[in-house]
Amino acid sequence: MRLPRLFFHLVKKQQGTFFRAMSGSSSSSIIPKTVNPDIQRERDNASFNVEDFAIWWHGGQDKLKLKRYVEKSVYADMKEESMFKTLNLSHEDLYTEAVKDSIRLAKKLQKLQAELNPGGTDIWPGLFSGTNMWGAQPAGNPFTVHLSVTIEAICNLGTDEQFEKFGKPAENFDIAIAYAQTELGHGTFLRGLETRADFDRETDEFILNTPTITAYKFWPGGLGHSSTHCIAMANLFIDNEPKGVATFFVPLRDMETFMPLPGIDIGDIGKKFGFYGVNNGYLGMKNVRIPRTNMLMRHAQVNRDGTFEQSPAAGLSYFSMLSGRCWIASNHAAMLAVATTIATRYSAVRRQSPINPKEPEVQIMDHVTQQMKLFPEIATCIANKLATQKLGQIYQQTAAEIKRGIFTGLPEIHALSCAMKVLSTSDSASGVERLRLACGGHGYLASSNMSNLYTTTTAGCTYEGENTVLLLQVGRFLMKSGQQALAGKPLAPTVSYLQTAVVENWSGSLENIVQVLQSATANKTRLALENIAARMLAGQTQGEAANNAGIELTQAAELYGRCFIAKTFLEEMTGPSSKNRSPALNKVLRNLLELYLVNTALKNMNEILRVIQISDADLRALQRRLEDSLAAIRKDAVAICDGFDFHDRNLLSTLGAYDGNVYERIFEEAKNSPLNQQPVPKVFHTHLKSFMKSKL
Amino acid sequence: MRLPRLFFHLVKKQQGTFFRAMSGSSSSSIIPKTVNPDIQRERDNASFNVEDFAIWWHGGQDKLKLKRYVEKSVYADMKEESMFKTLNLSHEDLYTEAVKDSIRLAKKLQKLQAELNPGGTDIWPGLFSGTNMWGAQPAGNPFTVHLSVTIEAICNLGTDEQFEKFGKPAENFDIAIAYAQTELGHGTFLRGLETRADFDRETDEFILNTPTITAYKFWPGGLGHSSTHCIAMANLFIDNEPKGVATFFVPLRDMETFMPLPGIDIGDIGKKFGFYGVNNGYLGMKNVRIPRTNMLMRHAQVNRDGTFEQSPAAGLSYFSMLSGRCWIASNHAAMLAVATTIATRYSAVRRQSPINPKEPEVQIMDHVTQQMKLFPEIATCIANKLATQKLGQIYQQTAAEIKRGIFTGLPEIHALSCAMKVLSTSDSASGVERLRLACGGHGYLASSNMSNLYTTTTAGCTYEGENTVLLLQVGRFLMKSGQQALAGKPLAPTVSYLQTAVVENWSGSLENIVQVLQSATANKTRLALENIAARMLAGQTQGEAANNAGIELTQAAELYGRCFIAKTFLEEMTGPSSKNRSPALNKVLRNLLELYLVNTALKNMNEILRVIQISDADLRALQRRLEDSLAAIRKDAVAICDGFDFHDRNLLSTLGAYDGNVYERIFEEAKNSPLNQQPVPKVFHTHLKSFMKSKL
Repeated sequence: MRLPRLFFHLVKKQQGTFFRAMSGSSSSSIIPKTVNPDIQRERDNASFNVEDFAIWWHGGQDKLKLKRYVEKSVYADMKEESMFKTLNLSHEDLYTEAVKDSIRLAKKLQKLQAELNPGGTDIWPGLFSGTNMWGAQPAGNPFTVHLSVTIEAICNLGTDEQFEKFGKPAENFDIAIAYAQTELGHGTFLRGLETRADFDRETDEFILNTPTITAYKFWPGGLGHSSTHCIAMANLFIDNEPKGVATFFVPLRDMETFMPLPGIDIGDIGKKFGFYGVNNGYLGMKNVRIPRTNMLMRHAQVNRDGTFEQSPAAGLSYFSMLSGRCWIASNHAAMLAVATTIATRYSAVRRQSPINPKEPEVQIMDHVTQQMKLFPEIATCIANKLATQKLGQIYQQTAAEIKRGIFTGLPEIHALSCAMKVLSTSDSASGVERLRLACGGHGYLASSNMSNLYTTTTAGCTYEGENTVLLLQVGRFLMKSGQQALAGKPLAPTVSYLQTAVVENWSGSLENIVQVLQSATANKTRLALENIAARMLAGQTQGEAANNAGIELTQAAELYGRCFIAKTFLEEMTGPSSKNRSPALNKVLRNLLELYLVNTALKNMNEILRVIQISDADLRALQRRLEDSLAAIRKDAVAICDGFDFHDRNLLSTLGAYDGNVYERIFEEAKNSPLNQQPVPKVFHTHLKSFMKSKL
Repeated sequence: MRLPRLFFHLVKKQQGTFFRAMSGSSSSSIIPKTVNPDIQRERDNASFNVEDFAIWWHGGQDKLKLKRYVEKSVYADMKEESMFKTLNLSHEDLYTEAVKDSIRLAKKLQKLQAELNPGGTDIWPGLFSGTNMWGAQPAGNPFTVHLSVTIEAICNLGTDEQFEKFGKPAENFDIAIAYAQTELGHGTFLRGLETRADFDRETDEFILNTPTITAYKFWPGGLGHSSTHCIAMANLFIDNEPKGVATFFVPLRDMETFMPLPGIDIGDIGKKFGFYGVNNGYLGMKNVRIPRTNMLMRHAQVNRDGTFEQSPAAGLSYFSMLSGRCWIASNHAAMLAVATTIATRYSAVRRQSPINPKEPEVQIMDHVTQQMKLFPEIATCIANKLATQKLGQIYQQTAAEIKRGIFTGLPEIHALSCAMKVLSTSDSASGVERLRLACGGHGYLASSNMSNLYTTTTAGCTYEGENTVLLLQVGRFLMKSGQQALAGKPLAPTVSYLQTAVVENWSGSLENIVQVLQSATANKTRLALENIAARMLAGQTQGEAANNAGIELTQAAELYGRCFIAKTFLEEMTGPSSKNRSPALNKVLRNLLELYLVNTALKNMNEILRVIQISDADLRALQRRLEDSLAAIRKDAVAICDGFDFHDRNLLSTLGAYDGNVYERIFEEAKNSPLNQQPVPKVFHTHLKSFMKSKL
């Protein structure tokens, strides 16, 4: 028995009835102040300094210090148990809590900004949607889109004067803006939007309309009851002539009464899988009039006389959307790190089934099948974080080139940001779910936070570009690149292997594994190209042929992204940055790289064996390397997760707190269930009793 | 524009403010009475008679007729919109609704039983937990375990007199019983249970105790506030000597007041990912005394004088648990069918992106990548249903053999039921989620029912035997069978290929694919055996070696189950039962079999290529067959799902109703959100307004 006999302790202490004795309020918490010895031993036995990892992961000592200070300040007065309670609320009450929490957080961050860096924006609003602040808004934040996407959109799509007029009040939170693009019947295909804006030359206004039910704006975060204005995408018409999609700044609610303005039909879209308090909304417009100058006109313009000036640089307005994808990719890597921390700590505390009969039950992390659920996800979140950092660098380079008038990097950064958005969201969603299942039944408890993490990560697979649609775009880039390769033309750096990658032999070195993956990608690209070509020869249009080859195209696209991740991880370990880390930390990361590459190779062996012969002995050796790498990571797993340095309030999990007091936390949280506040539920008297008494 | 301009219609009709005009009550439903033309055309173009499919799927005309009659009777007075409302409730209110709904359903089924087959049990309680009744209990059913698992357990573990005394009142619902096995700290490893029952010779009673917090019973369905009694598993002690785990019938609550009895600490475990109203509970016992005769004594006995008689047939009490696994496997196949119906119908209605530029947007089911998300799941739910039917037959055969004293079939039915439980739950969970994602953003709406389906199916991966633990048990069976094969001993039918399977050539026929899968399974089994042997040679114990080879063991176990499914599907199509179906129906099923086998081969190609050489041309041909089979199924997809014959109330989905009026249903359901019942939320006045007015 590892746990104190708390049961009797409490019964004695409270001297009430048995039931009352156990329904302790938070003042009589049963959670020990000590650290669970099983998890403490993990920390004592780690092979490296956790602080070294934390500094590396967070990009330096100063950043780590600031992060911790902000977290400490924000979470200081937030009690864990009151945060858990959010989970039990009705849809309506969840929304109310979300608004209250978000505003409370906003005030705290504003205060910190004034204290630490007055006039800056690094803390407020910079951190408002940051991964480390999630714990402060357990019900969600209806203003995230307002402060991230929308203000940037006004900056990129509006003129400087428009940003001054619309964007600045938004930055100050004098107004709150939703980003209304998606419609009930239209998402992926932007040209298909039905919302229309007609220019009225007489009054110098646009008239906005929602002609059908499928034209209703649907899904924008915060649109329901949390926005005073929105940015609305609509098809622009001048004299009934279509001019393409444009963007408009539309007032929605009266600033004093908050009542919807005339012609505005607005509301919440209802309960969802997650994002409970985010207040995604719908919007219909009936003859809503806005001044001509409310169209965002950095790129395209409508003049006073109704003449229309096409955007001279359509690609540019589109380029500004890419940063959103980079942000999503990076965020999802962080969410996967949260889940690995929870599941790994739980796996150090939970004991179940002996390995040798008649010996004691072991920590479940000692079961190799459990290691296989945990450690690849640790490796994946590190790999994806490194790759999204690299993606960010390429994005910045491309942005700098564009300023110098060089646009050649656009197709690659577009494809790469799509691929990384897809892989990071899908890796995180599937990884979080694997980790949730790795927590067994207790992972199903809302108080584990694993379910909330899952509903949050999986949403990323469909928002901001549905993943399959994005993969098909990457596929098109690969097709073009493949054709360029065949024609001997120069290729973008991340696809250079389409021309050069021919690996003759399997050596099994890490470099060799990356090359083999590149060969498999090149082969899949070739197969898709030939599939399309054959279908076109048989009379299909290019669109039809590409559609019919869609499976191979998306597979090639995924492999392309995987190669980028694998190569980036390898370079991080072999490149100059390895000199900035201690040898002990490098060894740990090297183990994770080994696991990542070996596991990636095994998972893609069906593609690899089409481009290279590998003997049965080599395949067995590879399997053995997989098993050995799990064994190598075993002793460091808890410490690695400690190095992610998540605040307990941010984890918000009965299974994942730093002290490892898992069972007491689960139990205390169960006791707090609203159903347990009286011993007999009302429905017994109103329904159950009479039914049981009735003779059948 | 396919949809009527409902917006204006409503605005005109109601003549109120814009907001009110759109927040129509159910009396002014905007859902057309007509069928969406896109989905109607699918039905018109199907190549087979849907009713033929429905009769086959439901096991004959009479069964289908009864099913429809029961559904019609149960769902007659249940309005869709009031069912959706459940989703918005708080944890407490969800539970209350669950109890009310369950009792209402129980009464209806009792009435139908009296009407159709008085004295029988086929309708009540037989259908109470049936998949076709889920729609009647959208918040869950806290009495499912009571009426399925528990009564059967009393029947199997108790004497005939005990069943009369404890089981009969349960069947009549005079009492409600929970099945209390799992503890907060103990699940998989039964011997590790901490709850103890000490025999008191003086009073002829057992004294039950929960010695630690980890010993608390935790998770039993309905235990929280819905049970008067429970079946509790505990370690039996006589004179402080352990006698192993036994089962006890324990009163929990006063039958009149429903108050917990003295020494009983009981309650709800709190909010979960799903199973909202199922009222999973915890239970602590402090010196709870029950008569000796409350121990279930069919197999083991404690006599009046305290002598203990070991069960003479431990395997038998365990055999009775297998039927639960068969039931779970079968249920999950049905849940996957629900999800395929919803996603397929939605994919016929939703239009997005043209295939040829400048042409209209197509039904998303015309995108091949979308077909690849839908059709393999249709094939999988059919394959898994057929395999679970076959599993049920083998179970019945084994039960009959046992009655004749033949126990040789036990290891195989144990392994097979484990494998099928694992594959059916994991196939359904991953399939439902793929289908949910295939519905894009709208699949994230609670009103799609896809999220609820996911949380229900994924729970099956951890309850009633965690999937990895079960796979390791299958792995052990394969190890033993593999050793028997090496020793030339006879093998159980489902593993006979461990001895015989050597496929020389790839022909690509369906029979050949099944054989190749069997070869891959045999090879994986051999690899795992050799892995273990090598580790034992190096000094590891058998337990350690098996643990270290756990990855290969579980892979072999999955392949074993997959072979069983593939072979069963193939036999259904080539065996005598094909003569009972129309040629048109057989052709449709043959297309699905082709898809299932080709896709299974491609997904397992990494294993297959280790046992057989396949040329690049053959692999391309296989890919082409995959694409061709999708094209072949395209025209019949909606009709196949119609053939599953789900009642709309059972689908409970804005995306999946028979009439295909998707957008109107989504929109109407959004309008019903409790947040939309007033135009301005209270939190604007209490928090948001003052924050926006404050100067930063």
